Amino acid sequence: MIRKLFIANRGEIALRVIRTARSMGIETVLGASEADAASLPAKLADHVAIVGPGPSSQSYLAIDRVIAAAVRSGCDAVHPGYGFLSENAQFARAVLAAGMHFVGPEITTLEGMGDKLAARALAVEAGLPVLPGGEAATRTDVHARAALTGYPLLLKAVAGGGGKGMRRVDRPEDLDTALDMAQAEAQAAFGNAAVYVERFVAKGRHVEVQLLGDGTSAIHLGTRDCSIQRRFQKLVEEAPAPAMPLEAREGIEQAAVRLARHLNYRGAGTAEFLVDATDFSFYFLELNARIQVEHPVTEAITGVDLVEQQLLVAMGKPLSLTQAMVRPTGHAIEVRINAEDPDADFRPSPGRVTRAAWPAGVGVRIDTHIGVDGEVPPFYDSLMGKLIVHGDTREEAVERLGKALRSLQIEGMPTTTPLHRRIVADPRFIAGGVDTSFLTGLAQ
Amino acid sequence: MIRKLFIANRGEIALRVIRTARSMGIETVLGASEADAASLPAKLADHVAIVGPGPSSQSYLAIDRVIAAAVRSGCDAVHPGYGFLSENAQFARAVLAAGMHFVGPEITTLEGMGDKLAARALAVEAGLPVLPGGEAATRTDVHARAALTGYPLLLKAVAGGGGKGMRRVDRPEDLDTALDMAQAEAQAAFGNAAVYVERFVAKGRHVEVQLLGDGTSAIHLGTRDCSIQRRFQKLVEEAPAPAMPLEAREGIEQAAVRLARHLNYRGAGTAEFLVDATDFSFYFLELNARIQVEHPVTEAITGVDLVEQQLLVAMGKPLSLTQAMVRPTGHAIEVRINAEDPDADFRPSPGRVTRAAWPAGVGVRIDTHIGVDGEVPPFYDSLMGKLIVHGDTREEAVERLGKALRSLQIEGMPTTTPLHRRIVADPRFIAGGVDTSFLTGLAQ
Repeated sequence: MIRKLFIANRGEIALRVIRTARSMGIETVLGASEADAASLPAKLADHVAIVGPGPSSQSYLAIDRVIAAAVRSGCDAVHPGYGFLSENAQFARAVLAAGMHFVGPEITTLEGMGDKLAARALAVEAGLPVLPGGEAATRTDVHARAALTGYPLLLKAVAGGGGKGMRRVDRPEDLDTALDMAQAEAQAAFGNAAVYVERFVAKGRHVEVQLLGDGTSAIHLGTRDCSIQRRFQKLVEEAPAPAMPLEAREGIEQAAVRLARHLNYRGAGTAEFLVDATDFSFYFLELNARIQVEHPVTEAITGVDLVEQQLLVAMGKPLSLTQAMVRPTGHAIEVRINAEDPDADFRPSPGRVTRAAWPAGVGVRIDTHIGVDGEVPPFYDSLMGKLIVHGDTREEAVERLGKALRSLQIEGMPTTTPLHRRIVADPRFIAGGVDTSFLTGLAQ
Repeated sequence: MIRKLFIANRGEIALRVIRTARSMGIETVLGASEADAASLPAKLADHVAIVGPGPSSQSYLAIDRVIAAAVRSGCDAVHPGYGFLSENAQFARAVLAAGMHFVGPEITTLEGMGDKLAARALAVEAGLPVLPGGEAATRTDVHARAALTGYPLLLKAVAGGGGKGMRRVDRPEDLDTALDMAQAEAQAAFGNAAVYVERFVAKGRHVEVQLLGDGTSAIHLGTRDCSIQRRFQKLVEEAPAPAMPLEAREGIEQAAVRLARHLNYRGAGTAEFLVDATDFSFYFLELNARIQVEHPVTEAITGVDLVEQQLLVAMGKPLSLTQAMVRPTGHAIEVRINAEDPDADFRPSPGRVTRAAWPAGVGVRIDTHIGVDGEVPPFYDSLMGKLIVHGDTREEAVERLGKALRSLQIEGMPTTTPLHRRIVADPRFIAGGVDTSFLTGLAQ
């Protein structure tokens, strides 16, 4: 049993975890930075423990401080949310060493999936298709590997995530410059400059599969399409993946489940795939061993509370769901409302929210830590809230999204709202199945 | 077209109207009392016009002040919400006289339905069954009418609504005392002491039908069951009415549509029926010529935005929906979170909300004007917010309701939340189809 849960995160996901924990009768302690001491999650958690000053390195990423705060507050479990320490094996180990449950997968899974090349090898073991490419330790290796893989290609940080340390290279003569930048970025972001080379699919869609496992059995909760991205960061996500033959969706789902079973996966995870939009061939990219920002679209179509499932599995309970019990209905879309300026290259716009009017109504869900007003501190990511719509059909979901976006009003800084209004009115989006280049075309 | 809408109301319904108006590109002006000047609706409307001091008689009920504010702010339409002036024919007439649209039915409808006896006569004309009983001008008439109707019976204010001026009488010897109280209450509440006598159905359920009309055609959007009441005030509402044969539901729906067509009804309205829980015979009670507090449960199962429909009809557009297009799916339940103490005879508990944690998640909708904190002024009704859940089945909706109620936390005053937690755990509620005596039994 979990009686008192430490939430090692902030923002909307902290609030999200608090809600489910409360509905399960679990007391909550929020580990907040000083910059978040007056935030909505801090107000709504049962207790708050300040873990350090604003900058993440001194608070949300400071393992010792977070562990000390969790132990001091008498918690018996830690939920890491997403980002920050959520996939950090060292943190998970420290949680277990302090005698608490870690709401996440086994440490071996975190280690295996945290390293992109190890993840790729495990996927190959499980029989999943992967993109041509591979690691390259030296500049000479990179050139050799690039010649084998062909152009266009991607350079990716081995330790990476979130698009950092990633570069697209279209021609051999651009390779050196791109490598320098990717390595420098990877070193700065992850303390590890190692990169690898991967084929770049010209018309690629980002499709992922939600997984749930208890260490013994594993099931999937269908697909999500997250092709609408800016700088490799998702902006719009939907479930199930639209404009894709049922067999293609099922093939990806089955592949994801194979991987989860191969890993004896425990908890909620997401297997990400690159799908060629022209023929629906697919390639495993990575497995995110945590709750995902876009999990609500899956919740909407399946009716499953993913955070509840995470907490139950962390308590050692076997999965109460079988694959046959998961019957997705309808269509859901999530858009991320970020404090950033879509007309100025998505420059972050932290500051004071003077007025936020969030939509509500049939098939509308809002997950946000900004109330009618609030603060976006400069230290963290720019996510202010997520607008999730659900309809019986994709057409209905798109209509509800348009309406909700018209009623959404945020004052105090530029946000991604106007961009989302343009997206929802775009005929290609309305038709469904756009590839990852969609936003580049739209913004220009 | 409506370009600028004056909202002559407050609280959650004001916010509800603002949201839909904004999604339709209509500018909003909130007519707020001084006590509501810092409320969430005041913060989220495009403009605020102060209509007077806190007490309703000097603000929300002061026709001249409301009209003057609407005219001054350049509005071309007035939405009256529910309660206050929403069914006041004199107010509607003043709105029209000032050259604005009234978002509601024709004045003749308001006049006909505002007088319970006229409404009864119109229903009889349209072929609807009504309860035995009738008006009684003098004490002698009341005694004679009571003898004809039989016991138990109800005394009801002719001008009434909301349970005021209503008394149940079980024995002839209690009639005189009950009459004195009913008349005094009717006089105080409505300025009219006239009462009428009606048979009291021992095991009665309150079932109502949502109607939409454009003056020419009229359709229904299914039933709602609102049997769980305290002092004739609804606390829990669900759609469709549970544990009722399909033919019974359809019979009531057809009767309601007959009445709407007979009245050439325009706008959103609700026909209320008393249904005998033992044999599903039904009797017309009244027609509420406005949006209803519990409208979201109908929105949840039909996907129709009722406020949008109201505004479209007020603009003179014909109904875009046909009866065949309305296909209710699933089941929805609403509970009213009131600032009142269910363990102290529902005594109002206005004051400062120090912390409000509203639930969110799949199939959960919250309509509230209280954010994470806020104020419940002493002048108005005690409704703080509505929690609406929707599921594919009633079982799923009940489960979601229980979970949402466990996560709901309001601090600062007693609320109806603990009572709702008891209701949702009660085997009779879980089975469905309780009668109006349910709460009396539960509270003891």
